[in-house]
Amino acid sequence: MSKYIDSAFSCLKEYVPGEQPKDKKYIKLNTNESPYPPSPSVIKAVNSAEVADLRLYSDPESSKLKKAIAEVYGVDSKNVFVSNGSDEILNFAFMLYGNVSGALFPEISYGFYKVFCDLYGIDKTMVPLEDDFTINKSKYMSTGKFTVIANPNAPTGIEMNKEDIEEIIASNKNNVVLIDEAYIDFGGTSCYELIRKYDNLIVCRTFSKAYSLAGARLGYCFANEELIKDLEKIKYSTNPYNINRLTQAAGVAAMAENDYYMANCKKIADTREYTTLKLRSLGFEVLDSKTNFIFAKHECISGMDIYTLLRERGILVRHFTDERIKDYNRITIGSREEMEALVNAVKEIVKGA
Amino acid sequence: MSKYIDSAFSCLKEYVPGEQPKDKKYIKLNTNESPYPPSPSVIKAVNSAEVADLRLYSDPESSKLKKAIAEVYGVDSKNVFVSNGSDEILNFAFMLYGNVSGALFPEISYGFYKVFCDLYGIDKTMVPLEDDFTINKSKYMSTGKFTVIANPNAPTGIEMNKEDIEEIIASNKNNVVLIDEAYIDFGGTSCYELIRKYDNLIVCRTFSKAYSLAGARLGYCFANEELIKDLEKIKYSTNPYNINRLTQAAGVAAMAENDYYMANCKKIADTREYTTLKLRSLGFEVLDSKTNFIFAKHECISGMDIYTLLRERGILVRHFTDERIKDYNRITIGSREEMEALVNAVKEIVKGA
Repeated sequence: MSKYIDSAFSCLKEYVPGEQPKDKKYIKLNTNESPYPPSPSVIKAVNSAEVADLRLYSDPESSKLKKAIAEVYGVDSKNVFVSNGSDEILNFAFMLYGNVSGALFPEISYGFYKVFCDLYGIDKTMVPLEDDFTINKSKYMSTGKFTVIANPNAPTGIEMNKEDIEEIIASNKNNVVLIDEAYIDFGGTSCYELIRKYDNLIVCRTFSKAYSLAGARLGYCFANEELIKDLEKIKYSTNPYNINRLTQAAGVAAMAENDYYMANCKKIADTREYTTLKLRSLGFEVLDSKTNFIFAKHECISGMDIYTLLRERGILVRHFTDERIKDYNRITIGSREEMEALVNAVKEIVKGA
Repeated sequence: MSKYIDSAFSCLKEYVPGEQPKDKKYIKLNTNESPYPPSPSVIKAVNSAEVADLRLYSDPESSKLKKAIAEVYGVDSKNVFVSNGSDEILNFAFMLYGNVSGALFPEISYGFYKVFCDLYGIDKTMVPLEDDFTINKSKYMSTGKFTVIANPNAPTGIEMNKEDIEEIIASNKNNVVLIDEAYIDFGGTSCYELIRKYDNLIVCRTFSKAYSLAGARLGYCFANEELIKDLEKIKYSTNPYNINRLTQAAGVAAMAENDYYMANCKKIADTREYTTLKLRSLGFEVLDSKTNFIFAKHECISGMDIYTLLRERGILVRHFTDERIKDYNRITIGSREEMEALVNAVKEIVKGA
């Protein structure tokens, strides 16, 4: 850090993404990537003619991409915003609404929410989860603050039902509610259609998980037209050409083969059920997940030990050091073969304990 | 704009990028894109195997890309920061240093500087250019403010010499000086090696112009390691995976064929000289440019008329409405054929006036 830095940022603790080790090849179950490649249409769309056109700027309006998303989801293009990964949407939303009267979100959730608060000097209220790691809706009613809920939540994987989400949105008429549906496609019920009914709702999504495009960096969200205009205003005031040409082309192509991706999500959900049952039979508590990961704790081996012993066996999972969840690991659901390898490694570890 | 927006942003006037019309095919001389495609190495690097790997996150550290840039420019990777277009570097730098004691930059320059100030509530000092549109170095000495100079400047195209730039940097020991070298490769003299001597210097660059990758969104900068750490801190607090996989691959491949790009820059500089002479012979005042555009004003036809009459003839140039420069147009240097078409169109317009 330089001596020139604004003191507002000198104590800022940045977000720490999941490790991307370069020492050897791991079975990577630590950053919730899809085990399946993008659809053939994406491979075809990102061709040498598109690459030659990189000399030209991308469409700052991302018109084709918005249209493609709008068609699949049955909304108007004006209700869609697209971004360089969904982190960019979260960033803009915290910037836009966080300092009106503070932000409120679950204490155990996506770790980036608190980073945005610290970055922008936003007063933050972090609501503890219940003992069973569920979100208690009564604590999110009429908050008067920018309210953010990941649904399903991460790293727990637990879903809140749509009726409860709607009650929260309805009770928060004077502030924006952002529902972060990064993991919705693996068995959850989306609330995105509620944007027609509520002008205070942003439903944030990503192509990183369900659409096998983590490396393309593409986020999107649905909202009332006026909220979309707010987001566009910040985009045009920070980075108008936020999405590159190839990612726009990949996103359009992905939307054209939505069925391929939804079938992959179903396969991942099936593999999740297999993995959950196996781990439970090996002495793990596994929370009920509606995502492409599970959150699991062994009855006698510590979370850190599980993480380390798996790493030694070439399998990476994500361990968080926060006191309340330090006994757990977040394990991405990979292919069936990868999860069988995980189960075998866990068997060895449990036997050796 | 929604009723929920933070009042801090309600009057914000966002940046307006050059038009990207979709009604018909134009000769596009309005956004300073390169007329030449990316090098064969880039076409080869962005292949179907890379696209299949999009299921995996990009390297948040962009290690290979930083290394490739560092090698071409003879610096250490630790002195390089890369971003989703150079606008992202500018954004982070204004955020980091603008509110320490305000920002200072030329009144006529890249229009985004004032947008960043308005976005972050930064006190801004905009220094008028001299009558001949040059930057008077004496007005940038010991400013005590975050000081930003585009060199060569835009939209004038005029370069400030390296000795003057160094004097400015040396006199501003207590604040950061950012030199925006977006257009340096078309005949200017870079000051990037001064990062070894001055710990308050950021030299910002882009792959958009000289490297024919406007649509890939890739910016980079050179600075002292501590300033780079500041920029990384903001990156990890807003968008850790800021550069997608394909753009990282394209950037690495472009660096491997630096000679191809420098030869293109030379061709563009030659075409610029041709165009300048032709326009001067047709009654234009053309400022001395060291960029891939020229800034030109006709002796009797207004800037707006030139813009409109060229547009009617299928040629797009950039017209700004600011009072002081409204008689000028910024004309990108395209291929020789495109500039011959421009010259012919201008001949018609002048004859008809």
